[in-house]
Amino acid sequence: MNVPNSQSLLTARLVKAIRSICGPGVVPLHEPRFAGEEWNYLKDCLDSTFVSSVGQYVDRFEAELAQYTGAKYAVAVTNGTAALHAALLLAGVRPNDEVLMPSLTFVATANAVSYCSATPHFADSTEQTLGLDPSALREYLISIAEQRDGQCINIATGRVIRAMVPMHAFGHPVEIEALLAVARDFNIALVEDAAESLGSTISGQHTGTFGLLGTLSFNGNKTITTGGGGAILTNNADLARRAKHLTMTAKLPHRWNYMHDEIGYNYRMPNLNAALGCAQLRQLPGFIEAKRRLFDRYNAALVEISGARLFKEPPRCRSNYWLQTLLLDEAVAGARDEILAATNDAGLMTRPAWELMHRLAPYRNCPRMGLAVAESLERRLINLPSSAQLGLDRAA
Amino acid sequence: MNVPNSQSLLTARLVKAIRSICGPGVVPLHEPRFAGEEWNYLKDCLDSTFVSSVGQYVDRFEAELAQYTGAKYAVAVTNGTAALHAALLLAGVRPNDEVLMPSLTFVATANAVSYCSATPHFADSTEQTLGLDPSALREYLISIAEQRDGQCINIATGRVIRAMVPMHAFGHPVEIEALLAVARDFNIALVEDAAESLGSTISGQHTGTFGLLGTLSFNGNKTITTGGGGAILTNNADLARRAKHLTMTAKLPHRWNYMHDEIGYNYRMPNLNAALGCAQLRQLPGFIEAKRRLFDRYNAALVEISGARLFKEPPRCRSNYWLQTLLLDEAVAGARDEILAATNDAGLMTRPAWELMHRLAPYRNCPRMGLAVAESLERRLINLPSSAQLGLDRAA
Repeated sequence: MNVPNSQSLLTARLVKAIRSICGPGVVPLHEPRFAGEEWNYLKDCLDSTFVSSVGQYVDRFEAELAQYTGAKYAVAVTNGTAALHAALLLAGVRPNDEVLMPSLTFVATANAVSYCSATPHFADSTEQTLGLDPSALREYLISIAEQRDGQCINIATGRVIRAMVPMHAFGHPVEIEALLAVARDFNIALVEDAAESLGSTISGQHTGTFGLLGTLSFNGNKTITTGGGGAILTNNADLARRAKHLTMTAKLPHRWNYMHDEIGYNYRMPNLNAALGCAQLRQLPGFIEAKRRLFDRYNAALVEISGARLFKEPPRCRSNYWLQTLLLDEAVAGARDEILAATNDAGLMTRPAWELMHRLAPYRNCPRMGLAVAESLERRLINLPSSAQLGLDRAA
Repeated sequence: MNVPNSQSLLTARLVKAIRSICGPGVVPLHEPRFAGEEWNYLKDCLDSTFVSSVGQYVDRFEAELAQYTGAKYAVAVTNGTAALHAALLLAGVRPNDEVLMPSLTFVATANAVSYCSATPHFADSTEQTLGLDPSALREYLISIAEQRDGQCINIATGRVIRAMVPMHAFGHPVEIEALLAVARDFNIALVEDAAESLGSTISGQHTGTFGLLGTLSFNGNKTITTGGGGAILTNNADLARRAKHLTMTAKLPHRWNYMHDEIGYNYRMPNLNAALGCAQLRQLPGFIEAKRRLFDRYNAALVEISGARLFKEPPRCRSNYWLQTLLLDEAVAGARDEILAATNDAGLMTRPAWELMHRLAPYRNCPRMGLAVAESLERRLINLPSSAQLGLDRAA
């Protein structure tokens, strides 16, 4: 058996299996579903004339997000990037600080750090969760950092390691308790990037509610969408108040005066987008059930195919399965681009992991630990069509 | 006649005159009007499932904005602040630069400069336009700046004065040709903050199309709204291409790869908001006619009241009259807060000018020229209820 033939056979089998689950036609990677009150809420929003930064749907969306996630407070913003930026500022990230984060993430995580004039510091992932590896991170910090005046200092750069931002990749929760222990032991603030994990829990507790702050995204490709949108979660009343202040241009309340007491941001979610969010949120439990059913269907179709396996939620976790994730064996990782081409050519929209952050031009020179696992995952990972519809439309 | 009585009389007369124009009930400062295809376009947007960062309405809104303003290119973004931030980066503003701007402006102008890690440098306004005074600015630059290697250097700080950002206050155009001459003579890039002046022209040419780049806002309080939104205008193809790239996370085009070649921003306007914008833009000419008619009505009602006058569009300019602007005589400026209280108490929503930028905590220590005119305007200025409805609902 020569390798090209083996790879071609694997590719053909995968295309067939994915097609058997997705049905005919062009199948997007992830498309939203508007099967609830979207229409009525948008109409109501227009009729009220409150489409912008003030309105009942923003307040309601925040209250319902808090209720759904179990966070004490939720603050709705323009998108997940804005949420991360504001959360990092609130966590105390300042110019010249370093912020630990996975290299295997969407570029928003690194960009938000840059917006604070701070520097990403990349840490490795674990194959158990696809997110930050707490054991490796602890060992790494022991070797490269020291405590000075209650701050964690990178000995090599002299900079403060102010925060860490674990990201729950494709909806699968990281080992948050172990990461929180590292954060506590090293005096590092923990901000959870839960952009992809709305609805995902760890021992029944919602992702994004473990850290000092957590962030969500409601971009068009996410499990629920507001067109563009995001949110900041926190259990701290003062941080919630400051989150709202900072994301609403830091304007002091007054009947008519325009006084701003710090450099603020125009990050408030418009009421129009929040109206869509309220309608979508009511459908979220059904979406997640459908996406979990889709995992079962893919898994059944793929289990017989050697050389690839579907990534399954970590122990004690319930994942939203935002994007279904296929992992190739290292031996056939060379087939990844062939599989991507064959599936996309067939109208089955798939994609690889993001280009690793430490390989992007703006982040090439950032500090980092060994990233062997992230590099291996990136070589082997393919996201499959994952819309809730695919788990809904046909009998299980 | 003692002064308190005179002020009380002025206040009473103003309340009566404003009420006579606005009609009964609570009258907002500026509310949007949805009397076109808003509903159909939002429904169409939902039905298409393209509500987010890709969609036909974003492309269409950009094309129609370009056509309406006469700019060669328009790039739709999340809000006016985002537009300004991106435009300043594209104009070459770098950390530690200085950017000339009026002190009499909304805080977004200064914040956008801060986001570039640059420093606002405040210049005075003129009572002729409520915007930057070109003659005073020229004299000031002659005294404080020098040219080195084709750059304008602030002699006192040693920093590069990279750009100037005139803002067309309340919709009234600045003396743009004279400011462009100053910019050219001193090697300073000119970015127009046209957030408030959509539809306002100078000798028939649209504000925001004179500078290297211009920016618009479609916040809920603006002449037309997208819920939250903004746009960048330019006649330069390369800048337009870079504006789109920078505001869409600097992702390089590829069928599936996620490669980003610089630090980008998640500033793209969602398709849902652009759908609203397309419907609103069609009504803009009618809105502006109504707002100009409202000026005439207010003017007729206020002309007999001594101590105050309505600000009229500068010569050769056609203003959108975004916010109708009352200027008190200096002698009765002390009545401003009494008038604000009396009108708001009566349900007539009025407001003063923004707190001047050089008085805000984050900008108190920024470099500045003498700001006597801005300070005088701020003491004397009151914006009146200005919705297009007020010029539409009754016979002229």
